[in-house]
Amino acid sequence: MTTTPDATTAPAGESSLIPTLPGAAYVDPAVFDRECERIFEDMWFCAAHESDLPGPGAFRTVQVGRESILLTRSRRGELRAFYNVCRHRGARICLEDSGEKARSFQCPYHAWTYDFDGRLIAAPNLTKMPDIDRVDYGLRAVHVRSWMGYVWVSLAAVPPSFEDTVEAEVVARLGTVDNIATYDIASLSIGRRITYEVKANWKLIVENFMECYHCATIHPELTEVLPEFADGLAAQYFVDHGAEFGEDIKGFTIDGSEGLGVLPGLDEYRDRKYYAITIKPQVFVNLVPDHVIWHRMYPLSEQLTIVECDWLYTPDVVTSGRDVSASVELFHRVNQQDFEACERTQPSMSSRLYRDGGVLVPSEHHIGEFHAWVTARTDSQKADSQEGG
Amino acid sequence: MTTTPDATTAPAGESSLIPTLPGAAYVDPAVFDRECERIFEDMWFCAAHESDLPGPGAFRTVQVGRESILLTRSRRGELRAFYNVCRHRGARICLEDSGEKARSFQCPYHAWTYDFDGRLIAAPNLTKMPDIDRVDYGLRAVHVRSWMGYVWVSLAAVPPSFEDTVEAEVVARLGTVDNIATYDIASLSIGRRITYEVKANWKLIVENFMECYHCATIHPELTEVLPEFADGLAAQYFVDHGAEFGEDIKGFTIDGSEGLGVLPGLDEYRDRKYYAITIKPQVFVNLVPDHVIWHRMYPLSEQLTIVECDWLYTPDVVTSGRDVSASVELFHRVNQQDFEACERTQPSMSSRLYRDGGVLVPSEHHIGEFHAWVTARTDSQKADSQEGG
Amino acid sequence: MTTTPDATTAPAGESSLIPTLPGAAYVDPAVFDRECERIFEDMWFCAAHESDLPGPGAFRTVQVGRESILLTRSRRGELRAFYNVCRHRGARICLEDSGEKARSFQCPYHAWTYDFDGRLIAAPNLTKMPDIDRVDYGLRAVHVRSWMGYVWVSLAAVPPSFEDTVEAEVVARLGTVDNIATYDIASLSIGRRITYEVKANWKLIVENFMECYHCATIHPELTEVLPEFADGLAAQYFVDHGAEFGEDIKGFTIDGSEGLGVLPGLDEYRDRKYYAITIKPQVFVNLVPDHVIWHRMYPLSEQLTIVECDWLYTPDVVTSGRDVSASVELFHRVNQQDFEACERTQPSMSSRLYRDGGVLVPSEHHIGEFHAWVTARTDSQKADSQEGG
Repeated sequence: MTTTPDATTAPAGESSLIPTLPGAAYVDPAVFDRECERIFEDMWFCAAHESDLPGPGAFRTVQVGRESILLTRSRRGELRAFYNVCRHRGARICLEDSGEKARSFQCPYHAWTYDFDGRLIAAPNLTKMPDIDRVDYGLRAVHVRSWMGYVWVSLAAVPPSFEDTVEAEVVARLGTVDNIATYDIASLSIGRRITYEVKANWKLIVENFMECYHCATIHPELTEVLPEFADGLAAQYFVDHGAEFGEDIKGFTIDGSEGLGVLPGLDEYRDRKYYAITIKPQVFVNLVPDHVIWHRMYPLSEQLTIVECDWLYTPDVVTSGRDVSASVELFHRVNQQDFEACERTQPSMSSRLYRDGGVLVPSEHHIGEFHAWVTARTDSQKADSQEGG
Repeated sequence: MTTTPDATTAPAGESSLIPTLPGAAYVDPAVFDRECERIFEDMWFCAAHESDLPGPGAFRTVQVGRESILLTRSRRGELRAFYNVCRHRGARICLEDSGEKARSFQCPYHAWTYDFDGRLIAAPNLTKMPDIDRVDYGLRAVHVRSWMGYVWVSLAAVPPSFEDTVEAEVVARLGTVDNIATYDIASLSIGRRITYEVKANWKLIVENFMECYHCATIHPELTEVLPEFADGLAAQYFVDHGAEFGEDIKGFTIDGSEGLGVLPGLDEYRDRKYYAITIKPQVFVNLVPDHVIWHRMYPLSEQLTIVECDWLYTPDVVTSGRDVSASVELFHRVNQQDFEACERTQPSMSSRLYRDGGVLVPSEHHIGEFHAWVTARTDSQKADSQEGG
Repeated sequence: MTTTPDATTAPAGESSLIPTLPGAAYVDPAVFDRECERIFEDMWFCAAHESDLPGPGAFRTVQVGRESILLTRSRRGELRAFYNVCRHRGARICLEDSGEKARSFQCPYHAWTYDFDGRLIAAPNLTKMPDIDRVDYGLRAVHVRSWMGYVWVSLAAVPPSFEDTVEAEVVARLGTVDNIATYDIASLSIGRRITYEVKANWKLIVENFMECYHCATIHPELTEVLPEFADGLAAQYFVDHGAEFGEDIKGFTIDGSEGLGVLPGLDEYRDRKYYAITIKPQVFVNLVPDHVIWHRMYPLSEQLTIVECDWLYTPDVVTSGRDVSASVELFHRVNQQDFEACERTQPSMSSRLYRDGGVLVPSEHHIGEFHAWVTARTDSQKADSQEGG
């Protein structure tokens, strides 16, 4: 679940069924390799929350495509991202998922030592090796920036325009960037984080998130809160359309009970509405009046994907220790329902019956656009724009 | 163990040793793929016992070659078999090994709903999708029939003649189909079922079943009951020859104690004899006076095979709760001994010493015929007769 | 750790950094296959200690390249080595790592029986198979010899000269074979054996053993005992140079406490020195005054290597039950530190950042020679010198 498709562009008249990608797209390791190269390692990738890196030397390691990337902050608090690979003989600099270094990153094998800007600042016998340049042999940096409180990296030599890719997805859905700015997401804090291991191809998870045709079948709690999702169409009748809460619903919670107020500054138009946005290739955002749910996928192989989901609230909700479990529980249950559906779909992808794929019904037509996008990006005829390292 | 080879056709005079298949035939995943395509997915495959499907809506899911197949019965009790794949976006219809549906098969993802004949009878918003034909988009059926109380399926577009394949194996062994009809196997009930996971290529299991050269070495209990197996030849001196029980043996039991009588209508010629029949590619049948032992293999990969073995008795033996353990134990032990031998053989298949295979002794010459049969069916020159789905 | 590189041949003046092998050399299964074929299955391979085979019929099974090899002794006590594959239909003769047979090796499948020289001495119905030659169909032997108390095998049709390969490594390091003979290694007994499973490519383990640039970083106990290792150079200033014990060090023990005397006959020059020798492709030897540490690697795949390490003492140290734990603990800890470093390096080998490899500093230049040696042996242009079986 759960974007609201744009019904205005649904094809009318002629054949209502649209073919999907062929099954091999979901099970062939060579296809996954190409997707890593052309998509995850070549676009902007949402890697962590800013608060995962509270200060200089705090670090986190994440998998971006096929690469282990080390995120940290410089002495001046600026975000930094590096390949997690020592320039000497390749040992992993940090094995832990997260931690904090006091002064530097020291490779635990031969003690090559890098500052938080990646410069090589010490190595045994370094003075006897005059041709080792401290920048050339520093940790290899990747592009990094912050947006909406999240840390985004790009492994491309020349990253794509952030505006034309990430921000454009928001504009397509909400009309303007202002309409997401009203939630002031960067000011929010993580109230809960849940990590899911999903035994399915990442594209099945995107497809699931993009349509609500399944909502009536597998999301009883969600359709209780958002009755229009129960009709299986959940059309986005116009840009910036949000799904309205049911009449008796007081908040976006597992039982429709009162939420945690309304985010400060939120315009009234949105104070009983739900929005879902897919930011390709690996971010899903849900906006509700009192919190934001932010998913990041980390695809590990053609059949395994990690999903990290944050529930974001105002800092005083989090620091005051108010009980957020009724709102967490609603989308946690939606996640479990969705990922179970994806895992049930993955095994058929190798069936001869799915050799040419399945079909999309009209209310899923925007999945066809996603398939066209993936196909265009991974087209083997296209010149390779990859960086060598 | 344990067919009795036909010694009358054993080659005489010249070289007594016959080469086997090369080791690669047992370890190469590409060979296994080809065997799935040309053998398991192209012939008749024994999938379940009729009693596994007691009535309309009762179902069982089985692996046939590389496909998950859903077996059930129609409203009128007729056998039905389908690919276990939703025609919409491919989710598995049933994840369980077996179960029962009251009214229909409903895909748990988007609620596409099929009747027990596979027709698409409901889907959210179906009325708005006029081009969805309820048969075209029904569950894709595969051929199914019953024989000897078992459910056989074929995934071929045009299945081979049942008479020329399955029945022909019985005729070659017993002379006529009448000679197996005397056991009235379809009337028997399952007294015990044991499932084995064997870490070996399916062909090693067939080869093991086809010869008795190993009986004296690994089957002490069996050779006690059938003394002629101890000479390591166990020749089928003529068509319809059966192995005679030992003089002091009262029944086909672990200790030679009394069995459970004689199957009604069995001709006298067989009332102290044992017969073993291999029905290629995946069924082994043992006939003894008071019960029948029926094995089915489900090859899962080039090095993993599931074997499901049923011990069949007259319905009143089963319903009366008579103790069948002495007869079950005998062949259960034989199975364990055989599968251990197969698992011990599998690892050498990748040795350079086995690059050109091993040798068959004269009493194993019919394994050479099995090898020739496999080679002919999987010959890469042969035009592909496969169905597209 | 821990050979002492020959600084006299270190390149001077120009660029001090030397490229390593590319990352693919450590992760590509096809590269590993080629290394098995051209290195482990084509050279002399140290397979076991002589005492693992105390007498006729005692056996051990080991993995040499991709093959399971059965080591034993003949009736007259001579070493024998065979492919662990029955010549009939390929079953493993022995599944256990070690054991003892009273009279013969009998295949547990069809009872083909071989004497300790490998000759086929019995098989059911053998007399009826006149064309089975007892030598032709005996266990297939591989070359075997003893050196330094260890059992070495070669699977090559014509093994390389032992003198030009194994012994030449000792001569290059110590100047003469006499200088290792002074330790009389063949007379020593195993006081302790520890087996390590290392999730790293075998070449990372060799490289680690060949340099001491990492000693100061990961081996605090070792550098305490051998202070010159702490400078990260640990140069072999001349042939037969050994690393001197620290002033207050009494023995090669975890705490520098007294060892177990001095090996009888050891020349005085060596009585406070440590030597490390790499015998390509899979043996590392450490010589200290009172014991010898002997490592053998068994590479199982491109990312998994078993290392078996023996601590060797004089027979009366072992039989008297004297406490050897202080000396075992020192190198056991070094092993753990080294293997952890190797396991931390393996994952980066598939990073795009390591596509062209890393760099060697001057004190690691001999690793470059190892890389050149591996490359030359596995060069795909070179004619294949492999035996067919």
